[in-house]
Amino acid sequence: MKVRVAINGYGTIGKRVADAVARQPDMTLVGVAKTRPSYDAHRAVDRGYPLYVAGNGTRAEFESAGLPVAGTVEEMVRATDVVIDAAPEKIGGENAARYHAAGVRAIFQGGEQAGVAEVSFNALANYGAALDKHRVRVVSCNTTGIARAAAVLTSKFGVESWDVTIVRRAADPAESQRGPINGILPTFHLPSHHGPDVQTIFPKLAITTTAVVVPTTLMHVHVNHVRLTTPPRDATAVVEAFRGTPRFHIFAAWEKVDGTPQVMDFARDRGSSDVMENVLWENGIRLAGPDLYFFQAVHQESIVVPENIDAVRAMFKLAPDAASSMAITDAALGLRGRSVGPR
Amino acid sequence: MKVRVAINGYGTIGKRVADAVARQPDMTLVGVAKTRPSYDAHRAVDRGYPLYVAGNGTRAEFESAGLPVAGTVEEMVRATDVVIDAAPEKIGGENAARYHAAGVRAIFQGGEQAGVAEVSFNALANYGAALDKHRVRVVSCNTTGIARAAAVLTSKFGVESWDVTIVRRAADPAESQRGPINGILPTFHLPSHHGPDVQTIFPKLAITTTAVVVPTTLMHVHVNHVRLTTPPRDATAVVEAFRGTPRFHIFAAWEKVDGTPQVMDFARDRGSSDVMENVLWENGIRLAGPDLYFFQAVHQESIVVPENIDAVRAMFKLAPDAASSMAITDAALGLRGRSVGPR
Amino acid sequence: MKVRVAINGYGTIGKRVADAVARQPDMTLVGVAKTRPSYDAHRAVDRGYPLYVAGNGTRAEFESAGLPVAGTVEEMVRATDVVIDAAPEKIGGENAARYHAAGVRAIFQGGEQAGVAEVSFNALANYGAALDKHRVRVVSCNTTGIARAAAVLTSKFGVESWDVTIVRRAADPAESQRGPINGILPTFHLPSHHGPDVQTIFPKLAITTTAVVVPTTLMHVHVNHVRLTTPPRDATAVVEAFRGTPRFHIFAAWEKVDGTPQVMDFARDRGSSDVMENVLWENGIRLAGPDLYFFQAVHQESIVVPENIDAVRAMFKLAPDAASSMAITDAALGLRGRSVGPR
Amino acid sequence: MKVRVAINGYGTIGKRVADAVARQPDMTLVGVAKTRPSYDAHRAVDRGYPLYVAGNGTRAEFESAGLPVAGTVEEMVRATDVVIDAAPEKIGGENAARYHAAGVRAIFQGGEQAGVAEVSFNALANYGAALDKHRVRVVSCNTTGIARAAAVLTSKFGVESWDVTIVRRAADPAESQRGPINGILPTFHLPSHHGPDVQTIFPKLAITTTAVVVPTTLMHVHVNHVRLTTPPRDATAVVEAFRGTPRFHIFAAWEKVDGTPQVMDFARDRGSSDVMENVLWENGIRLAGPDLYFFQAVHQESIVVPENIDAVRAMFKLAPDAASSMAITDAALGLRGRSVGPR
Repeated sequence: MKVRVAINGYGTIGKRVADAVARQPDMTLVGVAKTRPSYDAHRAVDRGYPLYVAGNGTRAEFESAGLPVAGTVEEMVRATDVVIDAAPEKIGGENAARYHAAGVRAIFQGGEQAGVAEVSFNALANYGAALDKHRVRVVSCNTTGIARAAAVLTSKFGVESWDVTIVRRAADPAESQRGPINGILPTFHLPSHHGPDVQTIFPKLAITTTAVVVPTTLMHVHVNHVRLTTPPRDATAVVEAFRGTPRFHIFAAWEKVDGTPQVMDFARDRGSSDVMENVLWENGIRLAGPDLYFFQAVHQESIVVPENIDAVRAMFKLAPDAASSMAITDAALGLRGRSVGPR
Repeated sequence: MKVRVAINGYGTIGKRVADAVARQPDMTLVGVAKTRPSYDAHRAVDRGYPLYVAGNGTRAEFESAGLPVAGTVEEMVRATDVVIDAAPEKIGGENAARYHAAGVRAIFQGGEQAGVAEVSFNALANYGAALDKHRVRVVSCNTTGIARAAAVLTSKFGVESWDVTIVRRAADPAESQRGPINGILPTFHLPSHHGPDVQTIFPKLAITTTAVVVPTTLMHVHVNHVRLTTPPRDATAVVEAFRGTPRFHIFAAWEKVDGTPQVMDFARDRGSSDVMENVLWENGIRLAGPDLYFFQAVHQESIVVPENIDAVRAMFKLAPDAASSMAITDAALGLRGRSVGPR
Repeated sequence: MKVRVAINGYGTIGKRVADAVARQPDMTLVGVAKTRPSYDAHRAVDRGYPLYVAGNGTRAEFESAGLPVAGTVEEMVRATDVVIDAAPEKIGGENAARYHAAGVRAIFQGGEQAGVAEVSFNALANYGAALDKHRVRVVSCNTTGIARAAAVLTSKFGVESWDVTIVRRAADPAESQRGPINGILPTFHLPSHHGPDVQTIFPKLAITTTAVVVPTTLMHVHVNHVRLTTPPRDATAVVEAFRGTPRFHIFAAWEKVDGTPQVMDFARDRGSSDVMENVLWENGIRLAGPDLYFFQAVHQESIVVPENIDAVRAMFKLAPDAASSMAITDAALGLRGRSVGPR
Repeated sequence: MKVRVAINGYGTIGKRVADAVARQPDMTLVGVAKTRPSYDAHRAVDRGYPLYVAGNGTRAEFESAGLPVAGTVEEMVRATDVVIDAAPEKIGGENAARYHAAGVRAIFQGGEQAGVAEVSFNALANYGAALDKHRVRVVSCNTTGIARAAAVLTSKFGVESWDVTIVRRAADPAESQRGPINGILPTFHLPSHHGPDVQTIFPKLAITTTAVVVPTTLMHVHVNHVRLTTPPRDATAVVEAFRGTPRFHIFAAWEKVDGTPQVMDFARDRGSSDVMENVLWENGIRLAGPDLYFFQAVHQESIVVPENIDAVRAMFKLAPDAASSMAITDAALGLRGRSVGPR
């Protein structure tokens, strides 16, 4: 018996999660809800996803654009076991009461307050905490990237303290109204909210985060300084620890990946233009005594997609633990190690 | 009997043409040649393309990166019927003698001088001129975009005169060393070379082009002013003429595609992140008496890909005319009208 | 007797016009009005300009920032002969009734509708039309740049037709919230509003304009194609015509000014970081028979500043004609030919 | 008796240092040397600086551009007491032998190896170390910014450890050939060279630096985490310590300076478009126990200018200590506290 999943909100995250749901062997995509017609809505119809009207949108508006409408968001909610809410920030929190009233479970994104759900979630880090839950919050892209790395480092080497500078992309590629065009904007909430957000998953982790916004659309980059409790003899052990973990992609120096422009080009080469893994560079990982330095790039548009899938699986106990859920998710999404290349 | 095709140069154009060749029912991909290992080379191996060493590269360098080598570029050339040269600008011209010496046919890209080939080529415009030819030059991305539009406008309405301002992207997405970061650079070759390049295909077309370079990586945009000989009564006829032609994609206003950022996002939605069609906007086409104004976006990374395929087909008479070749190419590449949306 | 001038709105344009007024021998700066404290307001106080509170701002808010307040905008208006309105777009139109009620004259910027004033103004083009007027509108930056060039070309060579592609900067340098960061946005109002705006000054000019927005903050660039009525024998005559006109700056090829980045660097070298002149390049002016092609860069932050000054002078008949007013303005602002360099 | 100063290299740094020398009461500007004519060279002539020909440039090339030449760089060197070398990176090191052979003293920039000079220099930090020296190296822009902050923090509160993430501007405003246009490039030299460079001045400082390059031209931004030895009770004491030190500029929250775009706009408001001070934000300084977090922006084009002046003064003992030299320099350059604003 497949779990029925509906997506409320069909923007950057929603459309990717819809595609991911449609590819899972143990889930059925009920449909997607959108407020207004646009090229995105077109895409849903092209892919055969039932399209529901959300917010203050109207059936007439969609139909005049030639887009068939399956019903209202309320109808979609009634027909599903769980809603993945991918509405714009803060709207998800407002939607929570409706899901509750309809008696359906819900997954929220990291833009909502932690209190919207019973648990904040990252597959590698705390899959078990979401088992059987009715309301789960998948943490934001930056928090997901850090939580995955924390799952590796805390378990393998222990973490005394962790400083992250988050160099944030200012806008997503299709957000043509957001700047800055030229300049760097410090985030004056200092330290930034990301550290406490990581602590919703790792309550005892001594992590401090700061952030600046820079004029790029591709990916965030994290500059990490971690003091390890039991450091290995050299950085190779750290490289291997990351390389042996699902959802990490480590570039070798000979690949000539200078930065995020080549990472995204690599992604296009793979055929998807998304990068759901944490991206690291072998020559961007350095150990000096107990001090680990590493760069990590995070694709804000897609990194949380597999975690949304795993959250569904945990909530409905479709898989008993992280490893088995992630294996199903990653196989369905084509996230796997590469077939060639030196270790 | 399939035509054997080899690709010399595996960068932005070469890798896309290789994929396209691999998908054609009447062609076999012999292999691809590359100078040095990189993430691009990795991709070739992942896709199972035989990888040959070009230029001053060495087998050892590839093998130490874990990339199996099929042979040298000379060996590749001996094993093929035609080479598609996608080497960096000017190198293609230098390679021409080698192809000739090896007795194989060759296709060159638009960065080479017109004299490198017997004919400069655009499928819609002059497919017949390449029949049976041994050396064909596929014109550059901007010239391809203009030539396609010229094929439509000259045949349907006649063109008295044509002014194009080409607003050029400064670098491809993965070229992280090229600027400017903030500023506009006029191209002081005035008028620009694109007009004469279009005239290699339309010798009598009264076209003048000028260009500026702007800090974006996504697409070029052409601002066109065409004086038509026999203008239709309103712009709708022009919209329909473009819409009814293969390799044109016309956005409707309701799709909310503000510019090139959303065009590329739409492309990712389609699953390829490439846009091999001329991109126009219904609300970006305006007729005022005989004066036609329209915007057109050109994806510099991919627009010439289908033309390279059609060039092979013309040279080996695999299809008798443009329409039949383009139908095969476009079906193989998934370039087709959309399934929904108002006309 | 000096004319008293007040500035309502102290942003990009207002602060520059205030400085310019303060330097004129025949004008007194009454003060400037601003809605809220900011680093801009600080600057006004540093320069000794009386600071008035506009809009829904409060005296307390300024004083808690340590900024002394001279009064309300109403008080400023009562104390002046003319208000130069540099409020955000559309607000100027709303302010018009207040100025009228107070019995003071007013100058508006090009973001307001032409109907707000008795005449749309450019010093070189129609100084005389503003003599004795009570409400004058200085046209926008792009229109000012075109109007100046039109004043030269219509008088020297005659203009049959004129096509301009306006490559627009997307945001001013300090507008860190505006995008796009990567991409080109066509302006779908086609032709653009700039052509009709030029015709508020040159009613019979056959000009058509189109526009695209690009991710830069420095300057607009115009790509011009003009069909001349009586073309000179070669481009030199055109170069000389521009070079001999105030408020034109022509770069020679040896200066290695590739585009707007170097123009702005040159401006900083001059000591102001503003470029109130039309900027052209000697190697960016080309004549082919009757067809003149040229690039022109327009500094959106400052090009209208001298025209605001001349508008005051015309309205109060402080100078009888454009030449004498411009001479005073330009001497006060340091806009003059350079002391060295070949002709 | 004034010290005679010559500038070899008239680019971004050289032209600013020349202006600064020309304004000092105790120095004479002998002239500036440049390889080729350009708009920069024009500027030197406009300002009346004797222009010498350097490198492989020729007198004829300058004269054909209308630029009078005072002689060769060798002649300039013979006529001076000290050369400030502002040649492109690495060239300064090559020039060192010539200065030595000519028996003149020399100042080098931070792009050269530390070994080129007897001492690496920052005015606030180690003025005394340059007294009477013949070869002094002014450290780079980023190192200067850190050294100034270190001078304050080590003396007032003590520093246990210091982590800096340097978010680097990718190109200077006029460098239109450098990218990236869209993307973030980690600096894989990890930790970066800046830490050891700071230690040429503060040998015992436990500082670690990492760097990323981002697509902006305006300023670098440093994200600092400092563990203080004797932390004050709250951040106010830190703010006051910085505010009370020359060459620090602290923005208050009410000024609405979101980031580097507004900092540079503020600079233009001051009349220079340069920011020779370390720039901090009051709401970007946070103390949590012994942990100090703060953002700092560094204007790469100008921050080292006053230090070059102070280096001359130390070498020739024109002032006995940092405070007296900096007072003269800063008065001449107009670097002073602002006249208004709350403390």
